[in-house]
Amino acid sequence: MEKENLDALVCRLPENVVFLSGYWPLNGWSFLAFPREGKPVCIVPHCEEKEAREELWDADCVSFLFGVLAAGNPYREIKNALIDISAGKNWTHIGYEGDFESVAPPWNAAEPAIPAETTRNLFKEVFGRESLVDATGFLISQRSCKTSYEIEKLRIVNEISAFGLKTFFELVAPGISGVEIVAEVEQAVMKQGTGYKGAKRVRAFAQVSTGVEETAAGFRPMVISSARNLESGDSALIEMGVVADGFWSDRTRFSVAGKHTEQQARIFEIIKSAQEAAIAQVRSGVTAGEVDEAARAIIRDAGYEREFLHVTGHGLGFRYHEPVPLICPGSDFVLEAGMVHTAEPGIYSPEIGGFRLEDNVVVTEDGCEVLGPAAKDFIF
Amino acid sequence: MEKENLDALVCRLPENVVFLSGYWPLNGWSFLAFPREGKPVCIVPHCEEKEAREELWDADCVSFLFGVLAAGNPYREIKNALIDISAGKNWTHIGYEGDFESVAPPWNAAEPAIPAETTRNLFKEVFGRESLVDATGFLISQRSCKTSYEIEKLRIVNEISAFGLKTFFELVAPGISGVEIVAEVEQAVMKQGTGYKGAKRVRAFAQVSTGVEETAAGFRPMVISSARNLESGDSALIEMGVVADGFWSDRTRFSVAGKHTEQQARIFEIIKSAQEAAIAQVRSGVTAGEVDEAARAIIRDAGYEREFLHVTGHGLGFRYHEPVPLICPGSDFVLEAGMVHTAEPGIYSPEIGGFRLEDNVVVTEDGCEVLGPAAKDFIF
Repeated sequence: MEKENLDALVCRLPENVVFLSGYWPLNGWSFLAFPREGKPVCIVPHCEEKEAREELWDADCVSFLFGVLAAGNPYREIKNALIDISAGKNWTHIGYEGDFESVAPPWNAAEPAIPAETTRNLFKEVFGRESLVDATGFLISQRSCKTSYEIEKLRIVNEISAFGLKTFFELVAPGISGVEIVAEVEQAVMKQGTGYKGAKRVRAFAQVSTGVEETAAGFRPMVISSARNLESGDSALIEMGVVADGFWSDRTRFSVAGKHTEQQARIFEIIKSAQEAAIAQVRSGVTAGEVDEAARAIIRDAGYEREFLHVTGHGLGFRYHEPVPLICPGSDFVLEAGMVHTAEPGIYSPEIGGFRLEDNVVVTEDGCEVLGPAAKDFIF
Repeated sequence: MEKENLDALVCRLPENVVFLSGYWPLNGWSFLAFPREGKPVCIVPHCEEKEAREELWDADCVSFLFGVLAAGNPYREIKNALIDISAGKNWTHIGYEGDFESVAPPWNAAEPAIPAETTRNLFKEVFGRESLVDATGFLISQRSCKTSYEIEKLRIVNEISAFGLKTFFELVAPGISGVEIVAEVEQAVMKQGTGYKGAKRVRAFAQVSTGVEETAAGFRPMVISSARNLESGDSALIEMGVVADGFWSDRTRFSVAGKHTEQQARIFEIIKSAQEAAIAQVRSGVTAGEVDEAARAIIRDAGYEREFLHVTGHGLGFRYHEPVPLICPGSDFVLEAGMVHTAEPGIYSPEIGGFRLEDNVVVTEDGCEVLGPAAKDFIF
C-alpha cells in the first residue's frame, strides 16, 4: 500500500472483505476499512455480528441495526462509522473497488450487494472526491499469490469438492438426467462439506452436460443441465464451482453412462495426458505460455488442436475465476510460488462431444501441488 | 420512457434483461439495448445465443465470440455492437443501471457480472458522457406492477417452491440437521421444478434455522444452517428463495421436530392469523400501512408487538427482494393491481425462538391472489 501511495482501502465486495479480514460476509452489507497503519475495522449488520467477531482476525468490529423496524438508513450508519474510523487520520488516498465487473457472491448468493452509485457517493462524501482511487488492479494483484493460510483454505474446499466429484462418478448411468446428477452432487457437497475440517458455509454450483450436443457446448460455465435421461454410451461432463467460507474451487470431470466407445476412451486419455503435461510444467519461474504449450502440444500431436478451443487455465481462489494468472498461448507472464490456477485442457467437437479435466494447482518453488483428491478415470 | 425523456435503455443486469426482453441470461455477459422506438437488441456471448434466440420476445439478437481463443476483448465487441445499434438514431438520453446496489444473479449464480467502471466507461464512449441518465428508479418503478405474463411466471415459481416446502415438512424430525434439510429441499426444488410447466432453469437457496437460539435470529436471510441435529421439541424455520427462469419467490415455513409444546402451537396460530389478516386486507387502493397494521394488530393484541421486529412485507419478482411495495407501519403508499409482495409476519424472542410464515401475493382490484399452494400447518 505504501508503494501504491494508498492510506487505506474501503471494501464492500465479500471476496475482498474475506481476503483482507478473514471474515466472509453472510450478506453484501459488511464494509471493511483497511488502513495502511493500524487495525482494520469491519462494519457489519447487527444480525451477522456474532459470525464476524468469531472470524475476523486482528480487526475491530462495529455493527449497525439492519433489517428491523428500529433500524435507520444503513448507508447513513455506514457513513457515520466511516467518518468515525477516519477521524483525525488525514487519509488522502483511499482505494475502493471501482472496477470489479465480475464478483463472487456473499454466503447469501441469491442476492449479492455491490458498490454502485450510492456506495461511491457515500465514499465521496466521507473522503472527498479527490481522495478516491480505483484499487481494483491493486487488489487483484495482491490476491494473486496466496498465503499458506489461503492455500490451506483452498486445499479444504478442493477436498470438499471431491465429495461432489465422487457422487458424480457414482451416479452417471443410463436413466438419470443431468439435472438429477447436479441436484445429488450439490447435496453431497453441502452435507459432507459443512463441518469438514471446520468449514462453516459450503455450497456447490454444478452443471452437468450430457451427450454429444450438450457436452460439445460445455467449454464455458454456461451450460444448462437438462432433464433428458442418459442413454448407454452418453458422455457426461460436470463443471463445478464450490465455495467454502469464501474460498472457491473449480473442477471438471468426464464420464460415460454404461458402455463407452473406444473413441471416448482414447480422447479421454489425450486430455488426461495433456493435463498431466501442463501440471508437470508448472513451477515458479516458468511462463504461463510454457504451461499452456505443454498441454496444447499433446492435443496438437493427437490431431485435435483446433478442438482445444480455450485457454489451459485461469487464476482462482477468492472467486470462481480470477484474472491472474491466465494460462494461455504465448503468454510471457511468469508464474510465482503461491499462485493458484486451474489446469483444464479440453477437446470439443459437434461430432464427438466435449471432453475436459480440470483441477486446481498451487505453484511452488520446484513444481506445484494439485489441490484435493484427484480421481479422474471414468473407467474403473 | 417518453415521460422520462429516455430515448433508450442499456442494461446488463439479468433482472432487467429478462424484464425487458424475456431472456434470462446464463451469465452476466448479455447486454440489452432497449430503444423507445423500434426493436430491442440483445448482445449475447455466442455460447448462449441458442438460449437467447429461443427466449427473446420480439427482439434482435447479435452475438460475439466469448471465452474461446478466437475471441477478442468482449467489451470491444459489445462497444462495436452498441455503436452499430445506435448509428443514425440520434439518441441523446440513454438510461443505464447506475444504482442497483442489490442485484439478482444470472443463472450462473456463482459469479455474477455487474456494470462497474469498465461498463460505465464503455457507455460513455459510445453515447457520450452527457447522454447517460441513471435509470435505476425508473426501472424499479416500471417493474413494480407485474403483467399477466409475469404473474404467471411468479405462479409457476411459487408452485415449484411448494415442492421444497413439502420436503421441509416431511423431513423435520429429531435426528436431522438444518444443513441436511436444506440440501434435501434444494434438491427437491431442482429435480421437481426443472421442466415443471416449462421451467428451464431452477435453483433454490434455502436456510433452515433450528432450535430457539437459531430461529430467534432468523428474521433476516442471513442464517447459517447448522449441522446440529434436531432434538424433539426443536423448532425449524425455513427461509427460501427460489428462482425459475429469472422469476423469484420468497417463502417461509415453520415446523417442530417430534412433540411440540402448547406455546409453540399457540404462537404459530398468532402468526398464522396475522398473515391471514394481512392477506385479507390486500386490495388495489389500500395503503401498505393498512396491510401492515392488519398483521401487526393481531400480534399486538396477543402481547407480542415488540417481538414482531420487521416489516410485514416487501416487493419481489425479478429479484428475491424488490423495494416496491414495502409493507411497513404507517406507509401511505397505495397498492395497485399487479403489485407482488410478501406477507410475512413473525415473532422472535430469545426465550421462545422465532416464528414466521411467508407467502407471495399479487394485488388485484378486489383483493389478492396468494401464489402457489399454501400448506402452512406444521401439526397434521
